[in-house]
Amino acid sequence: MTGTVAEPAAQVEQWLSSFEDALARGDAATASELFLEDSYWRDLVALTWNLKTVEGPEGVRDMLEATLADAKPRAFATTEEPTEAEGVTEGWFEFETETGRGHGILRLRDGKAWTLLTALRELKGHEEPRGMARPLGVEHGADRDRETWLDARRREAEELGHTRQPYVVIVGGGQGGIGLGARLRQLGVPTIIVERNERPGDSWRKRYKSLCLHDPVWYDHLPYIKFPENWPVFSPKDKIGDWLEMYTRVMELNYWGSTTAKRASYDEERQEWVLTVERDGADITLRPKQLVLAQGMSSKPNLPEIEGMDVFKGDQHHSSQHPGPDAYRGKKAVVIGSNNSAHDICAALWEHAADVTMVQRSSTHIVRSDTLMEIGLGALYSEQAVASGITTEKADMIFASLPYRILHEFQIPLYDQMRERDKDFYDRLEAAGFQLDWGEDGSGLFMKYLRRGSGYYIDVGASELVASGDIKLQSGKVAKLTEHSVVMEDGTELPADLVVYATGYSSMNGHAADLISQEVADKVGKVWGLGSDTAKDPGPWEGEQRNMWKPTRQEALWFHGGNLHQSRHYSIFLALQLKARMEGIDTPVYGLQEVHHLA
Amino acid sequence: MTGTVAEPAAQVEQWLSSFEDALARGDAATASELFLEDSYWRDLVALTWNLKTVEGPEGVRDMLEATLADAKPRAFATTEEPTEAEGVTEGWFEFETETGRGHGILRLRDGKAWTLLTALRELKGHEEPRGMARPLGVEHGADRDRETWLDARRREAEELGHTRQPYVVIVGGGQGGIGLGARLRQLGVPTIIVERNERPGDSWRKRYKSLCLHDPVWYDHLPYIKFPENWPVFSPKDKIGDWLEMYTRVMELNYWGSTTAKRASYDEERQEWVLTVERDGADITLRPKQLVLAQGMSSKPNLPEIEGMDVFKGDQHHSSQHPGPDAYRGKKAVVIGSNNSAHDICAALWEHAADVTMVQRSSTHIVRSDTLMEIGLGALYSEQAVASGITTEKADMIFASLPYRILHEFQIPLYDQMRERDKDFYDRLEAAGFQLDWGEDGSGLFMKYLRRGSGYYIDVGASELVASGDIKLQSGKVAKLTEHSVVMEDGTELPADLVVYATGYSSMNGHAADLISQEVADKVGKVWGLGSDTAKDPGPWEGEQRNMWKPTRQEALWFHGGNLHQSRHYSIFLALQLKARMEGIDTPVYGLQEVHHLA
Repeated sequence: MTGTVAEPAAQVEQWLSSFEDALARGDAATASELFLEDSYWRDLVALTWNLKTVEGPEGVRDMLEATLADAKPRAFATTEEPTEAEGVTEGWFEFETETGRGHGILRLRDGKAWTLLTALRELKGHEEPRGMARPLGVEHGADRDRETWLDARRREAEELGHTRQPYVVIVGGGQGGIGLGARLRQLGVPTIIVERNERPGDSWRKRYKSLCLHDPVWYDHLPYIKFPENWPVFSPKDKIGDWLEMYTRVMELNYWGSTTAKRASYDEERQEWVLTVERDGADITLRPKQLVLAQGMSSKPNLPEIEGMDVFKGDQHHSSQHPGPDAYRGKKAVVIGSNNSAHDICAALWEHAADVTMVQRSSTHIVRSDTLMEIGLGALYSEQAVASGITTEKADMIFASLPYRILHEFQIPLYDQMRERDKDFYDRLEAAGFQLDWGEDGSGLFMKYLRRGSGYYIDVGASELVASGDIKLQSGKVAKLTEHSVVMEDGTELPADLVVYATGYSSMNGHAADLISQEVADKVGKVWGLGSDTAKDPGPWEGEQRNMWKPTRQEALWFHGGNLHQSRHYSIFLALQLKARMEGIDTPVYGLQEVHHLA
Repeated sequence: MTGTVAEPAAQVEQWLSSFEDALARGDAATASELFLEDSYWRDLVALTWNLKTVEGPEGVRDMLEATLADAKPRAFATTEEPTEAEGVTEGWFEFETETGRGHGILRLRDGKAWTLLTALRELKGHEEPRGMARPLGVEHGADRDRETWLDARRREAEELGHTRQPYVVIVGGGQGGIGLGARLRQLGVPTIIVERNERPGDSWRKRYKSLCLHDPVWYDHLPYIKFPENWPVFSPKDKIGDWLEMYTRVMELNYWGSTTAKRASYDEERQEWVLTVERDGADITLRPKQLVLAQGMSSKPNLPEIEGMDVFKGDQHHSSQHPGPDAYRGKKAVVIGSNNSAHDICAALWEHAADVTMVQRSSTHIVRSDTLMEIGLGALYSEQAVASGITTEKADMIFASLPYRILHEFQIPLYDQMRERDKDFYDRLEAAGFQLDWGEDGSGLFMKYLRRGSGYYIDVGASELVASGDIKLQSGKVAKLTEHSVVMEDGTELPADLVVYATGYSSMNGHAADLISQEVADKVGKVWGLGSDTAKDPGPWEGEQRNMWKPTRQEALWFHGGNLHQSRHYSIFLALQLKARMEGIDTPVYGLQEVHHLA
């Protein structure tokens, strides 16, 4: 037994030791030779002050030559017993750089690195006050200038944005802005979150009535406060709204609700943003050093232009504006689109006895929720995973350690399993005329999400209504609208009292165009996607998600968002980048992304 | 090594096995012989449907003879590796009864039981929906009668207390009522919490401005949601207020704020309470089956009657009504009392440049906060304890497993250490004329708390002001008040613009007198205390805290409260007792307490 158990540990120790020796000598060439030809090093802010994946010895060498002198990575030490499976040895470790402390995961094949993840965890001298270092809460002793917690909070609310400028403004107070705001608060970075809705959570509350999260609770935790163990697997929208509101309060965020960001420009000379917001009917000018756009992937509605939209006499709106089914009992509804929102809205309308037609314009990837939970997520995000020691934080690290370049290879076999398991279900759907796909390379939902953020439905019941014909299905393109109908290109006329455009959202740099200028939006380029050269994610390969959580081509402009998992996991890296800049720590960025697409 | 490691396990296994055999045969006599003469079995609702400690083989035998046939305890199994230290072998175990599942801690000396704790954890068939059993949150599939989460919450708010009666009403919505409310919600017991303040947390917010919790965060967690790791050690009052408000919302409690419980009577025939509350200016009659008084130990102010109170021209109020120091800058303040509130208020007044005199009427027990944290609490409730695997839940069990009868024996050496460590501090205090005590038997703060709930100050700075004379000290009894002064029995006259009566609170059965009747209050008798025959806790020995969290002499009337630790830990036992009654489970109470004192 000792032989097989000791070996992975020895392998990892030896590799880390050789690696550290080479790094200590500034010898990028030797260090790079410790990597397989076919290898991936993903660095999250630790060496590169960027989110960056390099490939093969050459990529490693280039990165090290550029970063070694400043970063001085060292003190690598394993933190858990390394393991081995199917020829891959895996080791978790911690390390230091000149400015911070980090952790990572190494995978070896034949003694050489196949994948390496290095992730910054904290900045030296700027550790978060928590755990052993949590604040005392009260200053013991007697102090005639004592300020109570409440006084301090009130003073901060009066000063920040008025007599004292925030270092960061986050535009968008959904889960993304709130989670990042909490990280920044913890790091002592003065921040204001600007949100057009009145209360935290309203961006959920205002969506269609039947909405529940499609991701399960283990995947959805915010930083610092986990959902309790009685929390439902799939949070109803109003319940998650309440959680976000309470989280904002107890994390003491400076949250400006009912506030609209109107325009922003970067003052090159003073190296700060001039941001005008409207709050309580009055314009306020904020001058933050850093500006984060966190309005979300699903906030710039993509409304199609269809002939006759101006003559249609019924109700018509984008899915994001859909009020729910109550007013449409007995009415005829046409929902254009066949992804998540389209399915949810169709099902809720059907439940309220509307006559519903779904218009499918292109093929859709469908996965049944319980199948996805079990096969797609269960190993990392489930009650079973938690019970076996895979905390959410560990799961996030494991997920982050799988290189985007080969992630689809891990995904394809899972989706093959799902297709097999639910064969009858898919047969029924196809028999009803529904056009299915599994992503261009069969890699399924997560890859579609990472590449284009659309093109799928996690089935929680609507697909059976489609298969049974309860939700009517119409394939093809819409030609036009008349006063009371939707007319398809093949001439089919669909009578309609309601048309819902479940037609998705556009690239987040559109927010920069709206708020700052088209010029800045173009300078930054497309946001999201990997460059996989699949539909809606054109090449070339970029290695990381475009413009998310990392420096952009516009100084001091950042994008934050994604699902709850990404918002949680990547917010720490964005927060550390902002904190380092506030503290005047040198942050030389390695491999700033090129811009290949405008939107 | 195997010898010493295996031995405790074998000892515990063997004891549990012999114990279970005897119980299975219904042989109380043999089972009782497994206990030392000098032994204690504490049962929390598992066998006795009571909180009950019995002593020695005779006590064990009596309890078993009364409970065995119904409870049928069985399936005892260790849950952790037993340990041994100083001749005591300790084992954690789980077990079942006819109606529930429980866990406990056994301590053996010479192979016989010295202490045994058995605690009910859940009722069979009524397990809480959490962890693996958490709700799904959304009903997958299509359902034309679907009710959203929000609709269901709204309907519940409209119905409960109006068209549908709650099973339980909790009077008092502080941390006690809220924590119990959460437990009952989890168990599906329809409950309304009635609170005269507007919002959850107001009972903290409205107290004096400088107030912070004197117990540290690890001791203060509520059930289900722990304070996050950035939470301060000592929560400022407004911050804990926000937490309680958040908690009430996300735990989905039916919380009636701005509602006053006016009167209640028990309808013997219908076996339910008739409770009149005033809400939004209108009287509403509630008819719960069970009534819980959770107004707290610190809610019935004990206001002394002193000659001249009616002629005094300055401000005078009980400490619970003290608004804080702001209005008293440069004024002369006399604070009557020398416990926690008195010290906090004196210090805050001094910080605001008032001229402050503390009137000490009897000796006080003082412990410095950091000393108490380190020596008194550190092993169970601290960041170090958490790091070494002592979760809050485990710490609660350990604390509960130490019998009240001998608890002072564990405490005395700790307080001896504290006295030694802070000798200079105590010398300075005594030199300033402050009268110190350590409890009648030197057992210190926790025992004072459990016995009388008063008589101490956890020093967070005021004592140095007393020692230095910045807070003036006056010993003795107050004779009278004049228009502008407090006059002591020795004739000393203390000029005063403000008099604060930091004179404590009276027994919680006073709440029953106010709400129900003096007759019921007397039937129930004194609430709190152990019968230790020390000051304010007259004998005879009762074995458990009087009337807390367990059946009282008034059917369907319960008292809940205590500090955050007790509210958290004992709320589960009270909740299970209420749930069992709602479900019609037979709950024969063993050893219902005698009433020895009226208040």
